[in-house]
Amino acid sequence: MHERLYFDWNASAPLRPEARSAMLAALDATGNPSSVHAQGRAARRLIEEAREHVAMLVGAEPRNVAFTSGGTEANMLALTPLIEDGTRRYLKLLISAAEHSSVLAGGRFAAADIETLPVGRDGVIELAALERRLGECPRPVLVSVLLANNETGVVQPIPQVASLVHARDGILHVDAVQAPGRIPCNINDLGADLLTLSGHKIGGPKGTGALIRRNATVPFPAPLISGGGQERRLRAGTENVPGIAGFGAAAAATAREFEAERVHLLALRVRLEAGLETSSPELVIFGAGVERLPNTTLFTVPGMKAETAVIAFDLEGVAVSSGAACSSGKVGPSHVLAAMGVPRELARGAVRLSFGPGTHESDVDRLIEAWIRVAERLLKERNVVAA
Amino acid sequence: MHERLYFDWNASAPLRPEARSAMLAALDATGNPSSVHAQGRAARRLIEEAREHVAMLVGAEPRNVAFTSGGTEANMLALTPLIEDGTRRYLKLLISAAEHSSVLAGGRFAAADIETLPVGRDGVIELAALERRLGECPRPVLVSVLLANNETGVVQPIPQVASLVHARDGILHVDAVQAPGRIPCNINDLGADLLTLSGHKIGGPKGTGALIRRNATVPFPAPLISGGGQERRLRAGTENVPGIAGFGAAAAATAREFEAERVHLLALRVRLEAGLETSSPELVIFGAGVERLPNTTLFTVPGMKAETAVIAFDLEGVAVSSGAACSSGKVGPSHVLAAMGVPRELARGAVRLSFGPGTHESDVDRLIEAWIRVAERLLKERNVVAA
Repeated sequence: MHERLYFDWNASAPLRPEARSAMLAALDATGNPSSVHAQGRAARRLIEEAREHVAMLVGAEPRNVAFTSGGTEANMLALTPLIEDGTRRYLKLLISAAEHSSVLAGGRFAAADIETLPVGRDGVIELAALERRLGECPRPVLVSVLLANNETGVVQPIPQVASLVHARDGILHVDAVQAPGRIPCNINDLGADLLTLSGHKIGGPKGTGALIRRNATVPFPAPLISGGGQERRLRAGTENVPGIAGFGAAAAATAREFEAERVHLLALRVRLEAGLETSSPELVIFGAGVERLPNTTLFTVPGMKAETAVIAFDLEGVAVSSGAACSSGKVGPSHVLAAMGVPRELARGAVRLSFGPGTHESDVDRLIEAWIRVAERLLKERNVVAA
Repeated sequence: MHERLYFDWNASAPLRPEARSAMLAALDATGNPSSVHAQGRAARRLIEEAREHVAMLVGAEPRNVAFTSGGTEANMLALTPLIEDGTRRYLKLLISAAEHSSVLAGGRFAAADIETLPVGRDGVIELAALERRLGECPRPVLVSVLLANNETGVVQPIPQVASLVHARDGILHVDAVQAPGRIPCNINDLGADLLTLSGHKIGGPKGTGALIRRNATVPFPAPLISGGGQERRLRAGTENVPGIAGFGAAAAATAREFEAERVHLLALRVRLEAGLETSSPELVIFGAGVERLPNTTLFTVPGMKAETAVIAFDLEGVAVSSGAACSSGKVGPSHVLAAMGVPRELARGAVRLSFGPGTHESDVDRLIEAWIRVAERLLKERNVVAA
């Protein structure tokens, strides 16, 4: 009996051993980090060490890192018309049509002040449309574009986006939760003003995230959760000490292993996609022509239904996804593929395979064998239906 | 060399062994709880088991429990003019002057719509003032009164508050984070409509909390964090699976051990307060004449400074607090004592001793010995200053 295969790292990555150890140690740190006694100071130190590691992962300074309960909260915190000191107000929020659902909702902006910009058939934001709208919109504008799409893995040209936004005195927020350990993610090289990270996407625990600013000249947003002095008044509530310690350890490991893991992931993706394409001549890989995350393949075969495929894979002992895991209850096809102009019939068959540093070549080979069995069954059904 | 003594359980309680075990097991649950595959379903089960335990702790139904990242977020979620389906709007928020800072900030209400009600010299809310304002305010009104004060331990007469609020068609939110395991905390007996719990105050991990409604006829508030379907759309973002699992295990242990722990705590408090009063004839215990938590003693001696006392205790190897731990940077005297009419000079000397089921009689005796040494030193300084 084989172990189950896990090809759903973009939904949640397995905990790195370094993160596990850090969490175990932190579970014994009883003090409240806001307490002045020795136990409080010990808990505080764990948070500040983690802050250094998270900052280093994206080339920021520790004092510019604010911890949250996850990527979604960090996005919700970032997307507000109001800045921390109340001196300025963004008049518009511009987002791409391929954002994660936590950005698509527009945070604390009124619906009338949110504008969605198109992406091309390849999933890449249309820079000309962004430039045009930046010229037309009342200023200042907040722009939010994700670094790498969680479903397709398509990477956005953030440095170019940043140039356009900054030329119009705008502020650029980048949801980078899928990027670290997979593609370069230096906040200065990207030119992002605010950047969202999630702990459990990089091998840290679920329930942690961060909003990071490029430097102290970038205004932090107005708090989402107030009523306490934590995180320099940006985020009230006793800090998730074990979670943050685990996030910090995962960030340190991700930074240290990046070059090796990235090469490993890309080799796996090449092997995986070659295997898939050999198995099914009709197979479509979304975003195939542009830069994508080295760990993500979103594909389909005409006539396939994603829900059926995910269940068939699960029965084969393989965890895969039909797109984002974050919107339970959602059954319609992906808004990301719709934005790319993928016909509804094709989009509803999209299956996401995402993997990580713990994935072996042999896992990829077993996945392809499972896919061949799944495909045979599903395509037989398709033909019966068509007949 | 003695082990350090921890008398700051109200700031954060040590992790219960049951919570630790549950967290360790949950760290291996890799799946995203929103994923449909086996690993996702396994993570989902951990959350739903925890939901049952947390519901049971306060006599609610699991479907009426919404998990958050902590008590502060639960309070921030609860305190909004808008309800979940948008059909109703609270016109006023009435709070007591002795609320925790996360309620005092008034959540998402505009400052003009928040009204603070007085407490008496004993720290108990003035029911006549509440009744009067309920009669005068435009309806419907949201009222928020904490069950037991984190600084003084004073218990509020929530059933009477609930009767008054319900007679005027209001909704009552109760911050009960300090109550479970110490005093009865059944949501139906209290008559609370919405109730906040915090994981780390009952021996669960930091970074978890819950907002609970009495039954499905009570409207949940509008989401604070949106952009995902989790917690029935009430709270977006991948769930903190290990934290929630630990919270659930702590809730189960707290419910199971309640009767025994409560008796133990009360015996400790009697011993502690007798020892303190014997040591210093001038000693004042705040809220001494009314019902208080069995684990909390807030006291002072005229002329003492709390910051100095906390540091002196820390050097003696004892962790105590000068009030709430949640507002780092705050150095002014407690708003709770100010609301009770305690003179500023006396209030600035208030030291909180809070303990828990893991505290032994011998710990109390050691604490009193430490206090005698601390007091001798501090009172000598006082006399020098006075001279």
